[in-house]
Amino acid sequence: MKIVILKEEDIRKVFTIKDAIQADKDGLELYSKGESDIPLRINIDIPKEEGQSLYMPGYAAGAKALGVKIVSVYPNNVEKGLDSLSSTMVLINESTGEVCSIMDGSYLTKIRTGAVSGAATDILARKDSEIFALLGTGGQAESQLEAVLTVRDIKEVRVFDANKERSQEFASRMADKFADVFGVKIIVADSSSEAVANADIITSVTTAKKPVFDGKLIKKGAHINGVGSYTPEMQEIDDYILLNADKVYVDTRDGVLNESGDFIVPMRQNKCTEDIVTGELGEVIMGEVPSRESDQEITFFKTVGSSVLDIVTARRIYEKAMQKGVGQTIEF
Amino acid sequence: MKIVILKEEDIRKVFTIKDAIQADKDGLELYSKGESDIPLRINIDIPKEEGQSLYMPGYAAGAKALGVKIVSVYPNNVEKGLDSLSSTMVLINESTGEVCSIMDGSYLTKIRTGAVSGAATDILARKDSEIFALLGTGGQAESQLEAVLTVRDIKEVRVFDANKERSQEFASRMADKFADVFGVKIIVADSSSEAVANADIITSVTTAKKPVFDGKLIKKGAHINGVGSYTPEMQEIDDYILLNADKVYVDTRDGVLNESGDFIVPMRQNKCTEDIVTGELGEVIMGEVPSRESDQEITFFKTVGSSVLDIVTARRIYEKAMQKGVGQTIEF
Repeated sequence: MKIVILKEEDIRKVFTIKDAIQADKDGLELYSKGESDIPLRINIDIPKEEGQSLYMPGYAAGAKALGVKIVSVYPNNVEKGLDSLSSTMVLINESTGEVCSIMDGSYLTKIRTGAVSGAATDILARKDSEIFALLGTGGQAESQLEAVLTVRDIKEVRVFDANKERSQEFASRMADKFADVFGVKIIVADSSSEAVANADIITSVTTAKKPVFDGKLIKKGAHINGVGSYTPEMQEIDDYILLNADKVYVDTRDGVLNESGDFIVPMRQNKCTEDIVTGELGEVIMGEVPSRESDQEITFFKTVGSSVLDIVTARRIYEKAMQKGVGQTIEF
Repeated sequence: MKIVILKEEDIRKVFTIKDAIQADKDGLELYSKGESDIPLRINIDIPKEEGQSLYMPGYAAGAKALGVKIVSVYPNNVEKGLDSLSSTMVLINESTGEVCSIMDGSYLTKIRTGAVSGAATDILARKDSEIFALLGTGGQAESQLEAVLTVRDIKEVRVFDANKERSQEFASRMADKFADVFGVKIIVADSSSEAVANADIITSVTTAKKPVFDGKLIKKGAHINGVGSYTPEMQEIDDYILLNADKVYVDTRDGVLNESGDFIVPMRQNKCTEDIVTGELGEVIMGEVPSRESDQEITFFKTVGSSVLDIVTARRIYEKAMQKGVGQTIEF
């Protein structure tokens, strides 16, 4: 039995954001077709560390993708100089049942999460989108930015974060990395209003518990990605967007309607029902649900993530690494 | 983040069957005290391979033991020249939530399964036991034998398997390995009756669906370990034993009463109820349930295994490997 170890640097060598966007599209299509098996996540509480250890197995036969992502949420790690989140992906060979790869789950999560907004933007945003507003500059922001730059010919990126210093540091780092490659100007906005006004695409990736921008400022024809708000207590998207967007898409109905405050808060206030959802992105890919139908429509895509994205992306990374002979092989 | 890779050869270097017996005793005590968190196993079916992929997470705070054992059951693997069972243990650092070790789950399973019979034999069998009958010579038999030889001064081992050739091959291999070390004679019995008659300790480790020996032949004062029969359809122990043993112990009530045909078949036939169980081995260790009370009593111990045995044993292996600097370290 051979296990291939794939660290972040290995994954970066063989796997592009384009690859990840394709993997996410395929994963969501398999999910919406009912061709995946995603059991309920197991959570183990670790009271003495005030932490949680999470196990997310899944299987998508159509992509030969089988495995489990292990995630730990240990807020007190910060005091130890460690990340509060750590993650490891264990990939299993569908044909033999043997573990075939152990890979960096944190980097996997970043790229599959960036890529899912990339997939939604590719499918739903106007082709001539030029101005991109990015709200939030935490650990997930870079891959969110790269994904949108990859699928649309963006001229101007406006970055906003409640922490101005962090915004500036992020914008400057991203300018070094992407300004030339993508021919884009990256600037820091003074307010979320300044960032979103007239933007063609908006991605919000914050940990906010209250909406971070005024939905009425969004222009006709814009596309919005909601990436934060992955618990019922978190809400980053003004419910004006949810109630007034022409089309509302989700990665998975089950996940979004049960986990995201962006939907749960307005539903509890009886402002809308589950029917507010136009469809899953996978259903659009299948052709079962319409995509954007005019340049005037506002489209909103909400993702909370799914194991199907982890396993399909991990499998594709493994396949690329095998093709290119990258990674350290351990013989068991 | 550092992950230590521990292969079978690494584990053999640092971890003895005595260590495993102690780990199992501690694990069962924590379990019976209610000081472990063992969620329901997740099973994913892999229809196109007629296989199953199983995920067994668990946590025992008192032993700092946290992790998940992944097991695949792929009967068709045999045609590919691979084992039908494969297993990998992923151990997590309780203090940080980070994965700290990947180890050979098949060898782990063998030693913790041998050791649990060793623990039961150590606690329940007569001190002066000299004759040991081993029924079944499959992949789990060696560690079962070693565990009993470790805890009692056995003079004679009688091996029986329905496949005579396999019995002889096994007995001869075990004689080479253990005859001198333990000062023991290892012989092949012609029948299960010949093996168990007058034996002080009997361990049955078969995949039988019908009882493999006549319970009335068991002598007073004997101790029996039941290791096969881990599904409701499997039964290897004559129900005469279950109904007539003076004391009946289990590793976990939940596991045995829900999974083992040795108990489920007689219960369905209304020959007994769940009250047939005297107690869990952990309850004996805690002093809450009596152990053997005379040299005349017949004691029966049934194990179907539990994640608590995996995680506590895996953690102890990891600790020993760290002390002795064994294993390959991968820096993530």
